[in-house]
Amino acid sequence: MSSIESLQISFESYFNHRHFPLVPETLYNPLEDFLSNSGKRIRPVLCLLGNELFDEIHSDAYHLAAAVELFHNFTLVHDDIMDKAPLRRGKPTVHQIHGESTALLGGDVMMVVAYDYLNKIESPHLKKVIHLFNKTAKEVCQGQQLDMDFEKMDAVGLDEYIHMIQLKTSVLLAASLQLGSIIGGASEYNQGHLYEFGRNLGIAFQIQDDYLDAFGDPSKFGKQVGGDVQSNKKTFLLIHALETAKGDDLDELHRLLKLQSTDKVEKVLDIYRRCSIDEWANTLKESYLKKAYHHLDEIAVSSNRKHTLRALAEYLIKRDK
Amino acid sequence: MSSIESLQISFESYFNHRHFPLVPETLYNPLEDFLSNSGKRIRPVLCLLGNELFDEIHSDAYHLAAAVELFHNFTLVHDDIMDKAPLRRGKPTVHQIHGESTALLGGDVMMVVAYDYLNKIESPHLKKVIHLFNKTAKEVCQGQQLDMDFEKMDAVGLDEYIHMIQLKTSVLLAASLQLGSIIGGASEYNQGHLYEFGRNLGIAFQIQDDYLDAFGDPSKFGKQVGGDVQSNKKTFLLIHALETAKGDDLDELHRLLKLQSTDKVEKVLDIYRRCSIDEWANTLKESYLKKAYHHLDEIAVSSNRKHTLRALAEYLIKRDK
Repeated sequence: MSSIESLQISFESYFNHRHFPLVPETLYNPLEDFLSNSGKRIRPVLCLLGNELFDEIHSDAYHLAAAVELFHNFTLVHDDIMDKAPLRRGKPTVHQIHGESTALLGGDVMMVVAYDYLNKIESPHLKKVIHLFNKTAKEVCQGQQLDMDFEKMDAVGLDEYIHMIQLKTSVLLAASLQLGSIIGGASEYNQGHLYEFGRNLGIAFQIQDDYLDAFGDPSKFGKQVGGDVQSNKKTFLLIHALETAKGDDLDELHRLLKLQSTDKVEKVLDIYRRCSIDEWANTLKESYLKKAYHHLDEIAVSSNRKHTLRALAEYLIKRDK
Repeated sequence: MSSIESLQISFESYFNHRHFPLVPETLYNPLEDFLSNSGKRIRPVLCLLGNELFDEIHSDAYHLAAAVELFHNFTLVHDDIMDKAPLRRGKPTVHQIHGESTALLGGDVMMVVAYDYLNKIESPHLKKVIHLFNKTAKEVCQGQQLDMDFEKMDAVGLDEYIHMIQLKTSVLLAASLQLGSIIGGASEYNQGHLYEFGRNLGIAFQIQDDYLDAFGDPSKFGKQVGGDVQSNKKTFLLIHALETAKGDDLDELHRLLKLQSTDKVEKVLDIYRRCSIDEWANTLKESYLKKAYHHLDEIAVSSNRKHTLRALAEYLIKRDK
């Protein structure tokens, strides 16, 4: 089995070329620039891993991985417009540099080119691949819409939040694995467990992301610690705090949500600690991780083939913060 | 051969159902509303005609027609955001009613659902269909980008304008016909001529549209006559006028382009008439129409099968304004 690193490298060598026509430059060059500022290529690696769990990696898996990566980048470009985000991966966003219209249109073209890559797949299972790809694409859009709807709501339940996060983040990780496994000839049974592994891992990852935003080590966490708290973002932590804090803590929390004071983050985190939100978040994360590993165990291939998937789960989820 | 009207009716009965999931309503209901405010369904009819020119209409042609219609509507929703258009088909645009983010995301989902319809096609030529569909989708995006680029330029050449208009409008009409003909089992030779028929017809149609905006009968033309002139839109007429007007006329034209006076339209049209721009536009339109008919003649099927395509061309291009 390949290591994560070797899969990243081999995907990069497949993917590192021009994806779009040369003209009009005003449309296509911003997209080439954006794609070359790469990120970790987690989803393409998941595609390759999903294939390799069942069979040698087929060239189809690379086309698939490219399609998934383009789809993911398309969602980033469009989400950044909707969120009015100035930065992405430490650089100005596409709409920030080139204007919203070009970012909008560029995202559209990226999506079309994703389907160009899918159309290169020779597998007899192409229709199944496109079906799952489309189902997932719709779910990701639904997740983004729910996220925007939630911003306007006073209270969001934990179940609603988990549902949204699943759509916005987990289903694409899960589908990347399953899509790869379709290329690898996996049975429906194995495909199902692999998907569930990815889905639960994705939720655990998001809980960790919310946790690190509040309690992470600023020197290790890529983003500004406390950013979610400062902007009242509905996270696992805030939603649970609003559901469990009582008396003075709850009053204080509501008061702080209306403020933009310098000590807001510190005071909210004090409440989180008093209500044991940090421990609760870790326990919740572990429970999703346990579910994920259960589904990985259920997959009917020899356990040494699962080694890299376990390594990936450990790479994504740091258990010893 | 079916009439245009009967094809419109049979497409409508296939297409007139819910296309999107029920939730989240905030994302999907605006799209259902937009699609039901139908327009003339020209492109789906072209898909069916392209099929019927060579063989009985196959159920695949309906899936294809739905995909093309969804793609077209997706471009309208996104173009309206970019153009900040308040109205479409006489009603407020999606972004005007539901906000830009939902319109953006809704357009994205419409595109995904277009590929759902393509994925229903059982034809062994599915890969060719997706290839042409994607090529066309990219070209339409390129056309929109060029259109936006042109808005910022002082001078645009006639050839550049025709290239842009071809991408923005004609290629989708041409591809609708060719895609249908692939389902109908047409040879490459016949496909090529059918595409060229559609492409040239599309250019003739756009010349007519520009002409009618300036010289049309206000009681028959759907839009405000003179709107393009008032807003200095680069049209066939303005581009040619700037290339051919001389002396006082040219000076006056440049002066009028900087004004927003009440008699601007009238004065610009006077210059157009003095420079015979109206006759030139008619001659140009006729030349593209002639090319279109030439390609239609070249298609190797019995001429009675071409009857409805001729009727469609006549429906789109009124020769006796």
